[in-house]
Amino acid sequence: MSSVFEQMHKFFDPNSVAVVGASRKIRKAGHVIFKNFVDNKRRGVFKGELYPVNPHEDQILGYKCFSSLTEIAGGVELVVIAVPARFVPKIMEDAAKKKVKTVAIISGGFGEIGNHELENQVKTIAEKAGIRVLGPNCLGVYDSKTGVDMLFLPETKVLTSGDMVVATPRPMPGPIAIVTQSGAFGVAALDYLAGRQLGLSKFVSFGNKIDVNEPEMLDYLLHDEQTRVILLYAESIEAGRKFMDVAKKVTREKPIVALKSGKTEAGIRAALSHTGAIAGSDRIYDSVFLQSGILRVKDMEEFFDAGKALAFQPPAAGRNVAIITSAGGPAIMAADECESRGVLVKKFSEKTIAKFEALKKAGKIPSFATNFNPVDLTGSVTSEMFVEGMKILFEDPEIHSIIVIGLHHAPALQEDFVDRIARLKKNYTKPVVACDIGETEMALYLRFRFDKQGIPAYFSPEDAARAIIALVNYGQILRKTGSFEQYLKKFKTGKA
Amino acid sequence: MSSVFEQMHKFFDPNSVAVVGASRKIRKAGHVIFKNFVDNKRRGVFKGELYPVNPHEDQILGYKCFSSLTEIAGGVELVVIAVPARFVPKIMEDAAKKKVKTVAIISGGFGEIGNHELENQVKTIAEKAGIRVLGPNCLGVYDSKTGVDMLFLPETKVLTSGDMVVATPRPMPGPIAIVTQSGAFGVAALDYLAGRQLGLSKFVSFGNKIDVNEPEMLDYLLHDEQTRVILLYAESIEAGRKFMDVAKKVTREKPIVALKSGKTEAGIRAALSHTGAIAGSDRIYDSVFLQSGILRVKDMEEFFDAGKALAFQPPAAGRNVAIITSAGGPAIMAADECESRGVLVKKFSEKTIAKFEALKKAGKIPSFATNFNPVDLTGSVTSEMFVEGMKILFEDPEIHSIIVIGLHHAPALQEDFVDRIARLKKNYTKPVVACDIGETEMALYLRFRFDKQGIPAYFSPEDAARAIIALVNYGQILRKTGSFEQYLKKFKTGKA
Repeated sequence: MSSVFEQMHKFFDPNSVAVVGASRKIRKAGHVIFKNFVDNKRRGVFKGELYPVNPHEDQILGYKCFSSLTEIAGGVELVVIAVPARFVPKIMEDAAKKKVKTVAIISGGFGEIGNHELENQVKTIAEKAGIRVLGPNCLGVYDSKTGVDMLFLPETKVLTSGDMVVATPRPMPGPIAIVTQSGAFGVAALDYLAGRQLGLSKFVSFGNKIDVNEPEMLDYLLHDEQTRVILLYAESIEAGRKFMDVAKKVTREKPIVALKSGKTEAGIRAALSHTGAIAGSDRIYDSVFLQSGILRVKDMEEFFDAGKALAFQPPAAGRNVAIITSAGGPAIMAADECESRGVLVKKFSEKTIAKFEALKKAGKIPSFATNFNPVDLTGSVTSEMFVEGMKILFEDPEIHSIIVIGLHHAPALQEDFVDRIARLKKNYTKPVVACDIGETEMALYLRFRFDKQGIPAYFSPEDAARAIIALVNYGQILRKTGSFEQYLKKFKTGKA
Repeated sequence: MSSVFEQMHKFFDPNSVAVVGASRKIRKAGHVIFKNFVDNKRRGVFKGELYPVNPHEDQILGYKCFSSLTEIAGGVELVVIAVPARFVPKIMEDAAKKKVKTVAIISGGFGEIGNHELENQVKTIAEKAGIRVLGPNCLGVYDSKTGVDMLFLPETKVLTSGDMVVATPRPMPGPIAIVTQSGAFGVAALDYLAGRQLGLSKFVSFGNKIDVNEPEMLDYLLHDEQTRVILLYAESIEAGRKFMDVAKKVTREKPIVALKSGKTEAGIRAALSHTGAIAGSDRIYDSVFLQSGILRVKDMEEFFDAGKALAFQPPAAGRNVAIITSAGGPAIMAADECESRGVLVKKFSEKTIAKFEALKKAGKIPSFATNFNPVDLTGSVTSEMFVEGMKILFEDPEIHSIIVIGLHHAPALQEDFVDRIARLKKNYTKPVVACDIGETEMALYLRFRFDKQGIPAYFSPEDAARAIIALVNYGQILRKTGSFEQYLKKFKTGKA
């Protein structure tokens, strides 16, 4: 029996894949999935053997088609099933005969619509044959590095006008893993990451979870070099003790951000009819996440914002944040958000205040700038002023993280302040996040420029504050388990 | 003595304007402001007389320049001052001599940096001469209809690369008014509205508020035909009783959404050093807003989201919301957000559930769709299914508002469902908001298409829920004062 890691690894990096239900009909899920593999093989990303299985076709996209799994001469490490539910038990029997150990069942029509008997039948076959099953009723796996792409939604869609548009993009390779119970939310998340130019390591959608579930997948991602942060969406989580044990282990080395929905009575009722799982009291999840070192977020936006922060910035060594700004109002908003969630915007030390006073005397920042925390350089700000101010904040050991709010509207502020702050930051491990407000050209450009240099930028002061809150809270989790220094060392070398 | 309305109106629609400190030097505030007026006059938007005042210039942008206000032969209704603070009292004396009654002081350097004596001097002159003063230390006014534009920040900015980018855009004409204490946040708000293609009626930035303040401006906007919803940003509000009296009057006819920062100890300290105003306990503001019928939001994003909802949709007649979706997970998130803030996602009536069952039997929606609230049409959704489902929800008198979550990833969902829902909606006064998740081509396109047809669309389920919460809460405010029906009638005729 191979290790769980090796078992899970086959879903993401198989030597050979058979797609059962592969088709030439473009609207069929089996067509899209098989074509994903074909395309990725041609691009040189997917390197395994590839077999279409369909008794009604001779050939699909240039590949010889097999009437059943047992007809394939070579070995098959992974089977992806996309046929109507009633045919799935037969395919599972074939897989067992073929000694396949890894199967993803994309097909829906099982427990989620009340067909529990059919689901149990599949489960029994799998258990008897020692087959690890992902799904059924799931989107399966997407791996940006190996080219495994089981998503049955094509990247583009043709509108009624005849125009083709990007509809379900796959994000570029990167440090964020997505583990989701909801397939629909999963693809929406991919769309979000792709549009915001955030990179993805691995994507996995569980569906009905008759076998493979959260603990195994989290454990696998712990050992995945591509993954630096794990975003977990769930409506219900079973296997409480096992889940907590694994999560505790994982969060000592990698952050897990959880969006758990089904919090209110109506939400729980909706979750119940969605996945059929009993969501249970929400307070229990709060406690489970807290004890496991998982960062729970309150909504979708914070989910992605926290993920972005943790992917690109180190955790904070303490709860004190400094805010430096060109605009008083937004700095107050950020301060309010931090303080209301336990991140402290304390008045600076006498020493730091004196350093700012010296800058004023030297004419390097405006005499009417405020310098107690937040530092408000006012609308007269220049790039030079931001750099001088940041130097002081980086050097103050009582400050553990920094929010830079540089609104591009300030007339004398040039975009090079981004590069200069990013360069300066290289000398320190203190986390920094940025905010610029606006939705037209220069705001988008500035935020993108920050992002590209590894300083996550946000479109509202409160979002920037929530990013810092994630970095502060994860820092605390690491310190509690004594793993802060080790994490930081790994982070610096760029190894997740 | 003219009415307060007429006094305020002069700031927004003067017959004649003098810009003191007008300049040919492109970096001067007086240059930008004067050029705004010149450009808007040439475009035929600003229709008043225009006078540059600057003793050191003969002519600016083709206009004869005057050495002082008193040299201008014609009448001057509005004076905009953009000269260093120390010269302002002299200009005010000239304005008094010239019998000017309306002055906007853009210049900073008064109370906000400790120069209280200078500020009092200006105040005394104004009071004696009966001059209404906006500012000082403010951005003044922008009116999209009359072309009054006192913003000293040019629309474009040249990067160090030599490239020109849009930096401080002016939004197109529309129903949203912005009233802001913070100038920097004010321009950021303009940038946001412009980028999201939301229209602006009027913009006013108060700065130090030595004279004109919130109550007068809110009263003015109540009578402004262009304004349908007022977004108010404040760090401190004085004149408690007067403010509440006016706000109560306004909110019976137009919604006011308030973002009040300075909520926590650190936020209050920051607000104090920003505007010098005593912010006071935040709980008092909660009570003031509640009693005045003002909708208080918790952060910047909800500020704009609520404004967009109220600008385009009628308020809800009750607290019950229905959620219809193609994706279970996001519907649960929306349900959670609604319920946690007092908007009810109740199980549908037997009658409505039976109607959905009939659709299932007729094969018009999937047999495995859930129909208790949320309605989950699943990833098999088509445009037709959304329309059939919406019809049922519109007809149910126990449902007061609807959230449509139509994720474009669903393979058979075509973009025409947007148009069909918008057409259907025309027969009902029930408010509808939409959500699609994603940041690439089709998500942006779908949300924009909803927006263009008057159904505000949001990028997360929780944002869509917050939009409905604003419509529900404003509906309740109107019902409390017995003004719901009247508001609805006005809303339907398109008159704010």
